[in-house]
Amino acid sequence: MCDYSQLWLDWKPRKDLPPWTGRIIGMPASPQGKAALRELREGLAALGAAAKEDGPCLRLEELPGEGEGYSLSFEGGGPVLSGPGRGLLYGAFALLRQLSLGESIRPETSAPRYPLRMLDHWDNADGSVERGYAGSSFFFRGGRPVCDARTRDYARLLASVGLNGCCLNNVNVSGEALELLTGKYDQTLREIGDTLEEYGVGLWLSVSFAAPLDRGGLPTADPLDPAVRRWWGETCSRLFRAVPGLRGFLVKADSEGRPGPQTYGRTQAEGANMLGSAVLPFGGRILWRCFVYNCAQDWRDSQTDRARAQYDTFAPLDGAFADNVLLQVKNGPVDFQVREPVSPLLVRLERTKRMVEFQLAQEYTGQQRHVCWLAPLMKEVLDFAGPAGKVKDRADALCAVSNTGDDPNWTGHDLAAANLYAFGRLCWDPDLEAGSLAREWAGLTFGPDRLVEDTVADILLRSREVYERYTAPLGLGWLCTPGTHYGPSPEGYEYDRWGPSHKATCREIGVERGPGGTGMTAQYGEVLGARYGSADTCPEELLLFFHRLPYDYRMKDGRTLLQRIYDDHFLGCAEAEAMAAAWDALEGRVPEEVFRRVRARFREQIRSAREWRDVVNSWLYRLTLIPDGKGRKIYL
Amino acid sequence: MCDYSQLWLDWKPRKDLPPWTGRIIGMPASPQGKAALRELREGLAALGAAAKEDGPCLRLEELPGEGEGYSLSFEGGGPVLSGPGRGLLYGAFALLRQLSLGESIRPETSAPRYPLRMLDHWDNADGSVERGYAGSSFFFRGGRPVCDARTRDYARLLASVGLNGCCLNNVNVSGEALELLTGKYDQTLREIGDTLEEYGVGLWLSVSFAAPLDRGGLPTADPLDPAVRRWWGETCSRLFRAVPGLRGFLVKADSEGRPGPQTYGRTQAEGANMLGSAVLPFGGRILWRCFVYNCAQDWRDSQTDRARAQYDTFAPLDGAFADNVLLQVKNGPVDFQVREPVSPLLVRLERTKRMVEFQLAQEYTGQQRHVCWLAPLMKEVLDFAGPAGKVKDRADALCAVSNTGDDPNWTGHDLAAANLYAFGRLCWDPDLEAGSLAREWAGLTFGPDRLVEDTVADILLRSREVYERYTAPLGLGWLCTPGTHYGPSPEGYEYDRWGPSHKATCREIGVERGPGGTGMTAQYGEVLGARYGSADTCPEELLLFFHRLPYDYRMKDGRTLLQRIYDDHFLGCAEAEAMAAAWDALEGRVPEEVFRRVRARFREQIRSAREWRDVVNSWLYRLTLIPDGKGRKIYL
Repeated sequence: MCDYSQLWLDWKPRKDLPPWTGRIIGMPASPQGKAALRELREGLAALGAAAKEDGPCLRLEELPGEGEGYSLSFEGGGPVLSGPGRGLLYGAFALLRQLSLGESIRPETSAPRYPLRMLDHWDNADGSVERGYAGSSFFFRGGRPVCDARTRDYARLLASVGLNGCCLNNVNVSGEALELLTGKYDQTLREIGDTLEEYGVGLWLSVSFAAPLDRGGLPTADPLDPAVRRWWGETCSRLFRAVPGLRGFLVKADSEGRPGPQTYGRTQAEGANMLGSAVLPFGGRILWRCFVYNCAQDWRDSQTDRARAQYDTFAPLDGAFADNVLLQVKNGPVDFQVREPVSPLLVRLERTKRMVEFQLAQEYTGQQRHVCWLAPLMKEVLDFAGPAGKVKDRADALCAVSNTGDDPNWTGHDLAAANLYAFGRLCWDPDLEAGSLAREWAGLTFGPDRLVEDTVADILLRSREVYERYTAPLGLGWLCTPGTHYGPSPEGYEYDRWGPSHKATCREIGVERGPGGTGMTAQYGEVLGARYGSADTCPEELLLFFHRLPYDYRMKDGRTLLQRIYDDHFLGCAEAEAMAAAWDALEGRVPEEVFRRVRARFREQIRSAREWRDVVNSWLYRLTLIPDGKGRKIYL
Repeated sequence: MCDYSQLWLDWKPRKDLPPWTGRIIGMPASPQGKAALRELREGLAALGAAAKEDGPCLRLEELPGEGEGYSLSFEGGGPVLSGPGRGLLYGAFALLRQLSLGESIRPETSAPRYPLRMLDHWDNADGSVERGYAGSSFFFRGGRPVCDARTRDYARLLASVGLNGCCLNNVNVSGEALELLTGKYDQTLREIGDTLEEYGVGLWLSVSFAAPLDRGGLPTADPLDPAVRRWWGETCSRLFRAVPGLRGFLVKADSEGRPGPQTYGRTQAEGANMLGSAVLPFGGRILWRCFVYNCAQDWRDSQTDRARAQYDTFAPLDGAFADNVLLQVKNGPVDFQVREPVSPLLVRLERTKRMVEFQLAQEYTGQQRHVCWLAPLMKEVLDFAGPAGKVKDRADALCAVSNTGDDPNWTGHDLAAANLYAFGRLCWDPDLEAGSLAREWAGLTFGPDRLVEDTVADILLRSREVYERYTAPLGLGWLCTPGTHYGPSPEGYEYDRWGPSHKATCREIGVERGPGGTGMTAQYGEVLGARYGSADTCPEELLLFFHRLPYDYRMKDGRTLLQRIYDDHFLGCAEAEAMAAAWDALEGRVPEEVFRRVRARFREQIRSAREWRDVVNSWLYRLTLIPDGKGRKIYL
């Protein structure tokens, strides 16, 4: 067949299938409806349903339209799955999932919570993947985009968890990726778009704001320049016709050295809206990244606070963005750390469409060598209540940086596939519980085995806090190695133009972001701002994100801040060892190859967790010369 | 002519030439003697000598043999330069130098102090230069060795300062460089060797100890294996015949992940001697690097001391090396820091030939963006007296890692050419004074201008201590950015497998290498060991190399250790600014292009010096919270 796994779509035979699974009636006409029928036929057969000519059956009823919901009812001993083609596809995967997990099939109606649910690929045209930890790109090979069997299988995976969008290329657009706009690769893009579309997945492209200069031969990329507007208009006119699956552009502008409207003295809204009007005639949309900050900050400057930057830039523009522009806002105000507060933009914007951006690629969370299941983090963000309501209720879309590559298991670490799965499911229904998602994924992936399900779900559910404990003390991120972002280097970002600094001295640690400091807490509004603004009321897990505190600061349980950090690092490391031991007990119950791959990753996780524990503890011990209260080994 | 400078060989017309400069008599027969005649003809013409048919003349008298000395006497109103061909060449350049500097020509006899005086190139076959700061390689282009006009001009430069050897390729042999042994490039190597030989420069190649595996198809590289010995014998037999200019091999074995005799349980001597016997029939020699240490040291291990490693490995083998093997010993025990003690191997070996290795490539000393003239450092090392005599009297050869590349000015920073010049001159005569070398180089390079000469000599002479002050406090190196080795990162090597650590706490800093610590000071023998072993008697500039001390340790002048470090960093930075200002005053007196290039480098030096000052001071301030006694600005 193929040299890569089908992940949770590798249906395993069951003995308890209902009788209607042997017979399907209905002939959907849309590509997505046809895909639904094909998936059901092949899926039910794989689950062990014996084809029958009569008796109870599953009936597909295709409704007109582009809607994505479906309903399931029962009629004459068999279910009727009803909906537009796209809805049928999601309903088909839901049925297969429920059958595979041995759940009873009940009447339901279901529709996705968000109209746009997508993955962003940071794949480069040369086949490399920025912050990719699962091999090379499967969208680009040999310096150009490709469409092959894996494209289709990837679309199936996305549809099976309810995702409906996919941005093909890195937001840092360079090299041959600049040609994606020029027509050179229209044919391949059309094939990719059509293949994705068959599974209801829309195609998006990252574009460079400087494209009119780089590829248009214009002397400027000023968004208010008529020639620039004309160039974008003509480019879109060709591209959207040539690539019917195209839904719009993702743009990283004025960020980390990339060009943008600021270059021409224009606002972010002027930049985004210009592109918005270029894609509007084709029903297109613009996803505008908010990751704008000064990346050449002098470490001596204690006034500039990178955590403030996005809100300061975008909040004044609330309401100024066109209807077909969505702001893409990272879940936290800095950059995908294992623990950050929710971005104030997500809770304060009122008149601007926004999509929450997560990072499944584990750049700062163990790089798919450590287990770090992000569903609990995503849930925290989505359930977070700000002045204007909960994040999940105010968001217009969700997206995530993909953690995939051309590794046989797609995600490098086999357990990292659970991040992709959970993200898709939460996009469909953010009210799903992390616990049930963990069990769902384990059950679909490894088949019915209670010990495996319990063990894997337990590992997944603990993993993020474990990683947090041995790496980032109380919201203090950025202790990682500069550049690679893997492994500890507690002072690595201290005297640097990129990173937030903790300015740890022999007495205190952290940056004060309360009213006495950079004032960033005020960005959260009155109530939340007051809560975060005082160390007494600040949630302890964010204490060092928001405050500068002495090492003998008393935590609520009476321990000193320093002792709490020591304890967390010893505990986190021990927990990593315990998770690895729990996995070892699954030998013989999961496929040998998977068992060995995951065991090897756990070995690296333990090695790295010990390094984190010892380096962070030694660093603070050297600063303070205060020994561990429990007499454990801290190296000088 | 050519697109690169002739450096100090760009003779400038003088009005005060003696009458005999218009007429040369003598027809040397050897290639080197002919080169001498040609250099004199062209050089004297460039100096402005008017050709004459009679009257006083310069007579060349070629003696037989391969000797390198020459004598100059006077007969009938003109000088007689007498010696074997190689000697004539050195004598010719000496005459031109003296005339160019306006010195009076006196009778003399001169011969080089060391029979081997060479440069090591860390040039890779792909044209890159490891730790190269002056562009790409001029020995390798397009993935292969080349011989062109620059090869010859380079040989001239070497000969003009008395150097007689040149190792073509990086000691880390990889890629196409592995083919230098196989015959694939014999023709080009022969051309390069012949071109160098014309100027008395012998050709050397770096080879991989694993070549029998990599290129010989053997299952082992064990030096005692007969097939391995046979392979090396046959390889040398072909290579030395095909490349008559070849003098031997340079080998980095068992070092930083490179293979070596340790892999097979053999000693360094067994490895080196095996190669020694392979090259012996062809008069060849082996240069065996002593840079052997554990580069996978766990930072938690406080017993292993990288500074001890080379002595511990090689001292027990004193006397075990073959006659045609020279140990190549770095000037200090660690790795080319701006301040280190002299390597104990250099002062303790008694029955082993050794060559002192310096690094003109300014890996740790500002990467040819900062001025850092190394003659004072080289003098310190050469004049250093150990139990068995002075280093300069016990050394059998000198070598240096070259600081050259294909930049038009050869060395990136124009003033860095002074390092190449001084090294060559000190190889000829280690008793030369740094001050006179600085003036010589300035005079030859910029012509007769007292202000330029004074200014440049002053900058050169101060530069090393200035760099030391704003970077490395009291012998504490390795505060640089890991990997690049440029710019400050005081904790960058703290939790690393490569670097020595300072384990700075809020009270103390440094690694104790005295009797109470790693005991490294004992490697210097009784007298020196006792001197270094106690902080009271240890030279202050090496205090933190050898000792772990509290920040309030009192220096001889009453300042605390910490205040001394603060002061040094403020002072060093101010001195860098003063040097730059002194250079600025030379505008219009040195070639415009050179002036601007050097001014741009000084700007970067000042920026970087301020960064060093502020980062190192802030780091120590954060650790101690002890403010500067003079109230100067230290950033938190």
